[in-house]
Amino acid sequence: MAARAGLFRALLRARVSQKQIRHASMSFTVCKELEASSFSEDRTCKANNGMDRIFSGIQPTGIPHLGNYLGAIQNWVRLQEEYNSVLYSIVDLHSLTVPRDPPYLRQSILDTTAAILACGINPKRCFVFQQSQVPEHAELGWIFGCFTSVPRLRRLPQWKIKNTSQNNEGNVGLFMYPVLQAADILLYKSTHVPVGEDQVLHLELAQDIAQHFNKKYGKFFPKPRAILNSTKKIKSLRDPTAKMSKSDPQKLATVSITDSAEEIALKFRKAVTDFTSEVTYDPDSRPGVSNLVSIHAAVTGLSIKEVLHQSVGLDTAHYKMIVAEAVIQKLAPVRNEIKRLQQDKCHLENVLKAGAEKAKELAAPVYQEVRRLVGLQ
Amino acid sequence: MAARAGLFRALLRARVSQKQIRHASMSFTVCKELEASSFSEDRTCKANNGMDRIFSGIQPTGIPHLGNYLGAIQNWVRLQEEYNSVLYSIVDLHSLTVPRDPPYLRQSILDTTAAILACGINPKRCFVFQQSQVPEHAELGWIFGCFTSVPRLRRLPQWKIKNTSQNNEGNVGLFMYPVLQAADILLYKSTHVPVGEDQVLHLELAQDIAQHFNKKYGKFFPKPRAILNSTKKIKSLRDPTAKMSKSDPQKLATVSITDSAEEIALKFRKAVTDFTSEVTYDPDSRPGVSNLVSIHAAVTGLSIKEVLHQSVGLDTAHYKMIVAEAVIQKLAPVRNEIKRLQQDKCHLENVLKAGAEKAKELAAPVYQEVRRLVGLQ
Repeated sequence: MAARAGLFRALLRARVSQKQIRHASMSFTVCKELEASSFSEDRTCKANNGMDRIFSGIQPTGIPHLGNYLGAIQNWVRLQEEYNSVLYSIVDLHSLTVPRDPPYLRQSILDTTAAILACGINPKRCFVFQQSQVPEHAELGWIFGCFTSVPRLRRLPQWKIKNTSQNNEGNVGLFMYPVLQAADILLYKSTHVPVGEDQVLHLELAQDIAQHFNKKYGKFFPKPRAILNSTKKIKSLRDPTAKMSKSDPQKLATVSITDSAEEIALKFRKAVTDFTSEVTYDPDSRPGVSNLVSIHAAVTGLSIKEVLHQSVGLDTAHYKMIVAEAVIQKLAPVRNEIKRLQQDKCHLENVLKAGAEKAKELAAPVYQEVRRLVGLQ
Repeated sequence: MAARAGLFRALLRARVSQKQIRHASMSFTVCKELEASSFSEDRTCKANNGMDRIFSGIQPTGIPHLGNYLGAIQNWVRLQEEYNSVLYSIVDLHSLTVPRDPPYLRQSILDTTAAILACGINPKRCFVFQQSQVPEHAELGWIFGCFTSVPRLRRLPQWKIKNTSQNNEGNVGLFMYPVLQAADILLYKSTHVPVGEDQVLHLELAQDIAQHFNKKYGKFFPKPRAILNSTKKIKSLRDPTAKMSKSDPQKLATVSITDSAEEIALKFRKAVTDFTSEVTYDPDSRPGVSNLVSIHAAVTGLSIKEVLHQSVGLDTAHYKMIVAEAVIQKLAPVRNEIKRLQQDKCHLENVLKAGAEKAKELAAPVYQEVRRLVGLQ
């Protein structure tokens, strides 16, 4: 099976309609500033006497690709600098919702850990842990399931689409995983969740569950707010209208963050653009070259405008090589660090173990209080 | 809310059609002897080098009624003498599938514990524990959910009926509880499960999950077998065509095992029979008096034939008082012991705590091995 990585957004490949997104967004208390600016510029979410808490999860599906790195993991790195309490979980229970080969899954948990550490996630600034090492996730998931109606879940587009793709034989885990996501978030009384647009409906479910619980048992959970990611979605190098994806059957479409310099150069040289040689940014009419510009901006930290200014006079063939070189430079230390960490399984396991212990210290009192509130003790 | 108790069978009020029962029973490896004989007479299930293990659960819905006592709890008492490894769980996670008032639920956990101890369940011969004190139940439940298709669950009659009764707004817990039941059973590699006829379809799901798991990961779980209860179902004293039920709105229909002698006498005096005065046993044409005969046989330990022989020449009015007296005699020590135990909350909590610790010792290695097999470690 092809490796498939991704943050929470990658749990869901549903194409949520724009109408749904707008509807869901309207009902959120979103940090609007974050939608348009970089995280480092924003301080408006740091209220609540330093009690803000970030939670996010990544599925253990091996080595992330360039889109995961630029879209989500770089934001995670920024957020750990911005917030005092940050939890990043390798959500292995979620990964069981599609069939997994056990040795592959086992290796992927370590590879994903190595990858995010190599990308700059620092276990001294956040808790990095494996979801299934903290039993309270599944336990709270069960309790939340008793507060969630079946029709409410059935309406979520991810279920409709994934179930259809599995000949309407989708499993209960696939049906219920948005409830487990709600438990993941609320188990730590998280206040903020970095999400892609395709996850806003799931965060809305977590908000509804929190609200329902609070109404029934008294104010207990915060209403978790979305931090929408402003980084442009990175597209396939072979079909710039589709997202870059690890499961893409076209080998040249996706850049892994452990690709060699030669592989990266080849993939960018073969990148689909168009017959205009000028470098411009117009995702609708020129998706191919615009994707290159987005990647260029993201790996250099420059704005789209600055990147375009630097590229005046270049043709796209030449520009592809400049972007490839920037990507190679950006990924070289990441790649080396992943290789190094992959040799040190013991260190990776220790990081996860220590992270789980710290996560448990937060989770246990919250879950025990939930048990008391609902009458289980 | 009226208290509602019950064993696993009481989790399900679905009226499974006889055709379904026959179909399900055919696919079981049932201890056939047990269907027709008392448990104490049967030794054919004691194979497997003493590795047989019984698991059963009871919902914490307060003080059981006479039907629960004679139908299920007395069998539990017999089974703890017959088998070396027996686990009885207060399945509080299941009880959340319908709305519960927290103080009521909290008290019901203790009351149910007091009741089964008073009925003769001996924590020295079996493990008595609260389900939610063993996290592995919910954890294994999640994993099993990923092996169970949504259509498979949707076909179970309990869901169709309960969901309809909740205006098709049934919650995810209600939908998924047969999967949690499978986890309850298989977490201990249980080999035998005492069930009522209305639970055979759920045990079949547990068998299917065990088989599916074994096929995928190698032989690991035993195929749990049903021990069908041969005790006649105890009926309502006001409508002998319906089961005795704690939620019956007719106060005189149901005998609680803590009813006073006066209450018991009154309920039997008012019991619905028919216009024939003779005492006979024919549940189809004379359900009322036949129910009295069943109760009489169950509380005295005599056979139906012996009870009828003793009752020759009695009219039903007189016979009602004889049955009432037998029930009073049987329940008097139980009632006193429940009252005594209810005063000793600390003892009840200690019993549950010790039981959970022993259950965890069995559950933890099984669950850790499941984690390893599926690739989570």
